[in-house]
Amino acid sequence: MSDFTRADGRALDELRPIKITRNFTTNPAGSVLVEFGNTRVMCTASVEFGVPRFKRDSGEGWLTAEYSMLPAATHDRMPRESMRGKVKGRTHEISRLVGRSLRAAVDLSELGENTIQLDCDVLQADGGTRTASITGAYVALADAISFLENEGVVPGRPLLEPIAAISVGIVDGRVSLDLPYEEDSRAEVDLNVVMAESGKFVEIQGTGEEGLFDRDELNAMLDVAEKGCHQLIAAQKAALGW
Amino acid sequence: MSDFTRADGRALDELRPIKITRNFTTNPAGSVLVEFGNTRVMCTASVEFGVPRFKRDSGEGWLTAEYSMLPAATHDRMPRESMRGKVKGRTHEISRLVGRSLRAAVDLSELGENTIQLDCDVLQADGGTRTASITGAYVALADAISFLENEGVVPGRPLLEPIAAISVGIVDGRVSLDLPYEEDSRAEVDLNVVMAESGKFVEIQGTGEEGLFDRDELNAMLDVAEKGCHQLIAAQKAALGW
Amino acid sequence: MSDFTRADGRALDELRPIKITRNFTTNPAGSVLVEFGNTRVMCTASVEFGVPRFKRDSGEGWLTAEYSMLPAATHDRMPRESMRGKVKGRTHEISRLVGRSLRAAVDLSELGENTIQLDCDVLQADGGTRTASITGAYVALADAISFLENEGVVPGRPLLEPIAAISVGIVDGRVSLDLPYEEDSRAEVDLNVVMAESGKFVEIQGTGEEGLFDRDELNAMLDVAEKGCHQLIAAQKAALGW
Amino acid sequence: MSDFTRADGRALDELRPIKITRNFTTNPAGSVLVEFGNTRVMCTASVEFGVPRFKRDSGEGWLTAEYSMLPAATHDRMPRESMRGKVKGRTHEISRLVGRSLRAAVDLSELGENTIQLDCDVLQADGGTRTASITGAYVALADAISFLENEGVVPGRPLLEPIAAISVGIVDGRVSLDLPYEEDSRAEVDLNVVMAESGKFVEIQGTGEEGLFDRDELNAMLDVAEKGCHQLIAAQKAALGW
Amino acid sequence: MSDFTRADGRALDELRPIKITRNFTTNPAGSVLVEFGNTRVMCTASVEFGVPRFKRDSGEGWLTAEYSMLPAATHDRMPRESMRGKVKGRTHEISRLVGRSLRAAVDLSELGENTIQLDCDVLQADGGTRTASITGAYVALADAISFLENEGVVPGRPLLEPIAAISVGIVDGRVSLDLPYEEDSRAEVDLNVVMAESGKFVEIQGTGEEGLFDRDELNAMLDVAEKGCHQLIAAQKAALGW
Amino acid sequence: MSDFTRADGRALDELRPIKITRNFTTNPAGSVLVEFGNTRVMCTASVEFGVPRFKRDSGEGWLTAEYSMLPAATHDRMPRESMRGKVKGRTHEISRLVGRSLRAAVDLSELGENTIQLDCDVLQADGGTRTASITGAYVALADAISFLENEGVVPGRPLLEPIAAISVGIVDGRVSLDLPYEEDSRAEVDLNVVMAESGKFVEIQGTGEEGLFDRDELNAMLDVAEKGCHQLIAAQKAALGW
Repeated sequence: MSDFTRADGRALDELRPIKITRNFTTNPAGSVLVEFGNTRVMCTASVEFGVPRFKRDSGEGWLTAEYSMLPAATHDRMPRESMRGKVKGRTHEISRLVGRSLRAAVDLSELGENTIQLDCDVLQADGGTRTASITGAYVALADAISFLENEGVVPGRPLLEPIAAISVGIVDGRVSLDLPYEEDSRAEVDLNVVMAESGKFVEIQGTGEEGLFDRDELNAMLDVAEKGCHQLIAAQKAALGW
Repeated sequence: MSDFTRADGRALDELRPIKITRNFTTNPAGSVLVEFGNTRVMCTASVEFGVPRFKRDSGEGWLTAEYSMLPAATHDRMPRESMRGKVKGRTHEISRLVGRSLRAAVDLSELGENTIQLDCDVLQADGGTRTASITGAYVALADAISFLENEGVVPGRPLLEPIAAISVGIVDGRVSLDLPYEEDSRAEVDLNVVMAESGKFVEIQGTGEEGLFDRDELNAMLDVAEKGCHQLIAAQKAALGW
Repeated sequence: MSDFTRADGRALDELRPIKITRNFTTNPAGSVLVEFGNTRVMCTASVEFGVPRFKRDSGEGWLTAEYSMLPAATHDRMPRESMRGKVKGRTHEISRLVGRSLRAAVDLSELGENTIQLDCDVLQADGGTRTASITGAYVALADAISFLENEGVVPGRPLLEPIAAISVGIVDGRVSLDLPYEEDSRAEVDLNVVMAESGKFVEIQGTGEEGLFDRDELNAMLDVAEKGCHQLIAAQKAALGW
Repeated sequence: MSDFTRADGRALDELRPIKITRNFTTNPAGSVLVEFGNTRVMCTASVEFGVPRFKRDSGEGWLTAEYSMLPAATHDRMPRESMRGKVKGRTHEISRLVGRSLRAAVDLSELGENTIQLDCDVLQADGGTRTASITGAYVALADAISFLENEGVVPGRPLLEPIAAISVGIVDGRVSLDLPYEEDSRAEVDLNVVMAESGKFVEIQGTGEEGLFDRDELNAMLDVAEKGCHQLIAAQKAALGW
Repeated sequence: MSDFTRADGRALDELRPIKITRNFTTNPAGSVLVEFGNTRVMCTASVEFGVPRFKRDSGEGWLTAEYSMLPAATHDRMPRESMRGKVKGRTHEISRLVGRSLRAAVDLSELGENTIQLDCDVLQADGGTRTASITGAYVALADAISFLENEGVVPGRPLLEPIAAISVGIVDGRVSLDLPYEEDSRAEVDLNVVMAESGKFVEIQGTGEEGLFDRDELNAMLDVAEKGCHQLIAAQKAALGW
Repeated sequence: MSDFTRADGRALDELRPIKITRNFTTNPAGSVLVEFGNTRVMCTASVEFGVPRFKRDSGEGWLTAEYSMLPAATHDRMPRESMRGKVKGRTHEISRLVGRSLRAAVDLSELGENTIQLDCDVLQADGGTRTASITGAYVALADAISFLENEGVVPGRPLLEPIAAISVGIVDGRVSLDLPYEEDSRAEVDLNVVMAESGKFVEIQGTGEEGLFDRDELNAMLDVAEKGCHQLIAAQKAALGW
């Protein structure tokens, strides 16, 4: 990477300061505060013995996720979705992404008929809320599975290798890792990568609404994202004491 | 008060440990984390220049409030209201109480045509979430008004004397201050008191669903609540550096 | 009380003309038209054999309440909540108050697994709709329990002592009983009191949005409210032929 | 008609006892309680100076209608539509019928830019609620137009000739007028007729879900309905003192 | 009929070109594209083994219908009802009409405990969408019943004689059959007739919002409608190869 | 590619038969039926002079998109979203994808203050509905822009190079193009690619819920997708007569 320095002083391939705090609250089986710079998300994993009707007697567990922003998380307060009476498309889209990603981190056939509900509530938003959510949710998920194992209700070994997620974009023509809001809002291309510790992809989503991107640019972004994900996974493992 | 000691070791007229953290997040003009023991509420005050249509050209400002629980705040996770598509009656009731109470702490005719939106989001619930919300919201409100004053858009002196709120109940026949969930769920009588520093009441709500209460019991509860409110107001002032 | 006379000619501690008409409609087990001056509320108590799922096999009954205003009940017509697709916070708040209050008038463990649904629909509003609703609902409840007893499905004696409710406020500095809309809209303090025949309180809610109140004022208001509630309970008993 | 007598003692072509009470409540410009036997509907006409956006500067007025059942109006209580969060198809269908019918009774181009909102709230249901609603709404409409005329805001003569509505059905093979619930629920054919004083039809709706009907049966039903409508119009005029 | 010719060259008692295409799509048991001139409606009949809870163990089947317009079906695009979060009254009203009409074409007691769900989705609207829907839905229903019979789950002979529907109106004083949008929007009177092959009526709905109608006009309209329905039924039978 | 043949006889890198029919309906400015094998989507582009409030006086146009499935489009009928009262997350997600993709095909600053509303309604679903929607919507968009140009309201040249979209997956270990439902439902990896004629990407979304994927697999999928997109763009241009 070049020696260009960003507004916040980071190198182009450098993550913001990452902080993962377990046991942030005490009621859910897993509760994590994850911070990517000024982005702060409370990720909880609540457990329920039993599964929804459509999975009953399948011998398998279930995992679902919901993402939401607190109204005052953004610079300009946004109306509360519960008061509007409907959920925004963006919220739905991210909830689905988090759910798909984390289902890749658990073998439901090993979980027994238990349900894990992930909630990612953004306390403060400064770009990268979906990637922070996925990264924090893995840690909360690990704690929730430990809780279920301690309860003696898990027949197998459901937790799979760590997954983490990071954004990378092309800003002013430069491939940049982990975009804060100021960069994200003017990026030509935005790519979110969810990766497992093995280096394989769980999900990639690249969007060029302000400018198209070619295969070389995609590869350059993926290179940087892989490096970022490995660092995030190291942070997850450190937080989990692995 | 007697020397009876509660499950958590407190005297009957003793508050749980109170903690008020300003600048908990950075986007809203006021952002406070308030803790009453294990109850933790994020109270924010967002400002907007201008007022809703029905107050336009009145020369007055406006203040409104919304209360909500994060789904994993309680011991058993509760469905997210935005996903249900409607707000529960309890949520509405508490939002209205917070709004009425805090409007008593501000002189809207001195505020100019500005709007303050309070949000009280419960991160962790262990009883007393509405009283913690009111207590924390006053501090966030004070910060938001300072912000508006610094912006030079406030014509007068809108902030009135501090208000705080506390619950008191009759549990096993004993008048007890600041009920945690365990006590609240088996209280015979539950009284929420919102009081100003002058000792006058802003709002009192007493409910005897599990047992009626007479005038003497009401007075005994009010005596203890007054003492608790004065301590809370001292904590607010300390947090504000007053 | 002083010899001050109100706009409608009443003394400060005088109720408006009270009228309680049983069997106002014939389909529900209890149906009452209650009138506090120009405020008219139709209070019905519908019965259902069986209880909601969460009470099944508890041996206990259940009681719930809904309050609503007809669109043309107020001076300026209000939009119909069913057409807006959501219930206003005020409606929710009063429904919950009515439900809590009337549950204090029935011993659910004596009711058997039966459900009573109270509906308080305001035909004409002139202040005090929530207190009229509670007062009328007790009479409808009494009739519904008689109906269930006649059906032979009630194992015990569920109906408890009468409860009634009245508003009292401070208007132009004077403690005034049973506020019509004209007084209510400019009251400094508003207190709603739900009281049982024994003189004990079921619920008190005092609000000082336009002015705080001290302990002396609270006591003065409670004195007048008690007197009013005793008169209402006498009217309930007369209507029931007790 | 034959000398067959119905369960309630009426002849086949006989209306139930009809009662029209004006000024049933005092806030709306028109307020009528209409009774067709045990069916009781409160019909109000609220006025507003001005028209909705899509009629502004048209020089014309507007009229709209909403129909609703109170939850306890029927023998078995029905869930409240505002709580379900949506309006039933039946409610929508009848609201639209009432609105279309009453717009035929007013010349909007003579009304000036004023809006009349009709509300038909069924207090007690025993068949024929939609026809009672239309019949009562005409009287409320007449009073509301008088009110507007007294206010001096009506440029022309908007009120047209009276309209009324009645149901007729084929029950056990017999053409029967003004069906109560017991007959309505087992009718082979059901016809609702809205007619003006001139004998012309405003709307006819015939349904043969439990059996088809031919032209002769249609004509027999229309004959009886015409007679019923004329009697209703006489009752409307008597109530209005015309 | 006179030799007056309409804007589209038709005689007053002439249908628009009618086209009924079976197997328009392949997933539902019955799928029909019906065209009345430029009006095009996709009518599907989906089958489900089993019935809703309220019909369980009745030995009878169930049939229900939903009507909807695609947003771009009309000249000016209309907002999508799913995005508005609620269904318009007009949609509800027509869905109910289609359901009632088609239930008259099936003997549910002969169907066995099977459910047929009709969907009428308007691809292009040019007047007469409800009558086209009913006419097309009968053909889809016939195919769906054949499917169920081939599955061996139908105990009897549920399909009854064909039904079809047509609109007739009075436009510029002339009784006109099968109104396109241009005529429908300025008709004085509008009558929708649902008729069975036997010539008996299933449903008639006549509306005179822009002008009342007398018995002679009604009869003239019914005469023309009967002729139109017989032609539609011939087209249905031809499409079905009967 | 290997000589493996799929269930439907296609080679692994072969598209299903593609058909693009313009002027499918006549009311919208652009109306296209697009078919990818058995998947059939009606794509319309409706135009409106003017823009939403937030774009007013910007000199720019606006484009938005909605995707929806007809209830009977799938093998088992799905509940209609308008009746459920809320839109599913999947629907929201695809609507947003279609909107983002097509905004990349138009230069809004050249469009003038006009709005284009795309609607993609799936008549029949057999996999690839989102990619067919995007591919068909481009053609409808081109027709709508021609319409606006003919109206003389377009200041510049808003239409950019063609874009098309295709799915590619790994099924039974083989990279396969344009997955029908049968393959899609058991794919290990699923990748949707939106590409412009220049070969640059507009959007890529790869998901490995049933199995992760590495960089080599990603590249193999992108190679096949590019080939497919070029063929689709050729079909678009042929349909447009370019």
